[in-house]
Amino acid sequence: MSPKPMTRPGGRSARVQQSVHTAVRELESESGRDTLTVPLIAARAGVTPSTIYRRWGDLQELLSDVAVERLRPESAPADHGSLAADLTAWAEQFLEEMSADPGRAYIRDALLGDPDSGNAGACSDYAVEQIELILSRAVGRGELAPDVETLIDHVVAPMMYRIQFRPHPMPQDYARLLVENALKGLGPRRT
Amino acid sequence: MSPKPMTRPGGRSARVQQSVHTAVRELESESGRDTLTVPLIAARAGVTPSTIYRRWGDLQELLSDVAVERLRPESAPADHGSLAADLTAWAEQFLEEMSADPGRAYIRDALLGDPDSGNAGACSDYAVEQIELILSRAVGRGELAPDVETLIDHVVAPMMYRIQFRPHPMPQDYARLLVENALKGLGPRRT
Repeated sequence: MSPKPMTRPGGRSARVQQSVHTAVRELESESGRDTLTVPLIAARAGVTPSTIYRRWGDLQELLSDVAVERLRPESAPADHGSLAADLTAWAEQFLEEMSADPGRAYIRDALLGDPDSGNAGACSDYAVEQIELILSRAVGRGELAPDVETLIDHVVAPMMYRIQFRPHPMPQDYARLLVENALKGLGPRRT
Repeated sequence: MSPKPMTRPGGRSARVQQSVHTAVRELESESGRDTLTVPLIAARAGVTPSTIYRRWGDLQELLSDVAVERLRPESAPADHGSLAADLTAWAEQFLEEMSADPGRAYIRDALLGDPDSGNAGACSDYAVEQIELILSRAVGRGELAPDVETLIDHVVAPMMYRIQFRPHPMPQDYARLLVENALKGLGPRRT
């Protein structure tokens, strides 16, 4: 037994994940997602196909993991000085990103190769974390704030439902109206 | 040209659809859905595989169509004498059916092989039709009623979001609380 192994298993595992994810993104942008196969991805990533099958099971589960990584927010929600402004800006951006073609494709991929619903849960956790940050800022300002579950139910869920199930044009100002409605009845700002 | 064709194209088309849908349901219940293939389904339905490919494109699109047929409500919502009671009973049944394993699998199938979002739209239309019936009954009784879009956004969407994205236990009495919240602020019943 060597006291200094050449590679830590965790380190190698993380590198494999990164190179495989990168290979998926590169191949997808070069030749479209319908052309993706495990052997192609493995060749680009410099691993064997069996490494991919062992780790992800199949192509759908790999694509689900890649999609969840892409749905991860890149930054904290901007601070616009009030709960209403912060939530409105966040919801408008969320709706714009998720209803665009890449967002819809990532949502679909995330849900698809997800036998234990872990990736679906991760998508929801991203929204929960962003909203919790907005709420804690509001509380810091002395504003009255609803709880995060209320905002998931009445702001996030309606947007996701329309994106997935109602291929009609969205009502104008939809995100803003949902936020307005969710904050209604909270009373005036405490000062 | 014969003035009396032996089969009307619409008639044959409807028979093919029915026999293929039936074959999918039978094979699925006999040996599970992971064993389904187009050649197996074609053999059971008494059609050629190319008939299936021509009509549905691939297995996913066929399974999406079958799923939408299974998600179609079998009867009108029951009349319990008031808007609140009708909506609560409908929402509770919807949540129970959609959150059970078969319901979740049908939702997933419906969304998956659905390139033009037509099947996703059909799922949503089923809910809209059921709710519109409940609302028109309420109006007939002289009750104040919200519009159908409000109920889609604040009753149906939160249930579907939790079913799809939040693999945690649902809050107790979730459907009833969503309905209560959606009807809040409508004022007393007009008589």
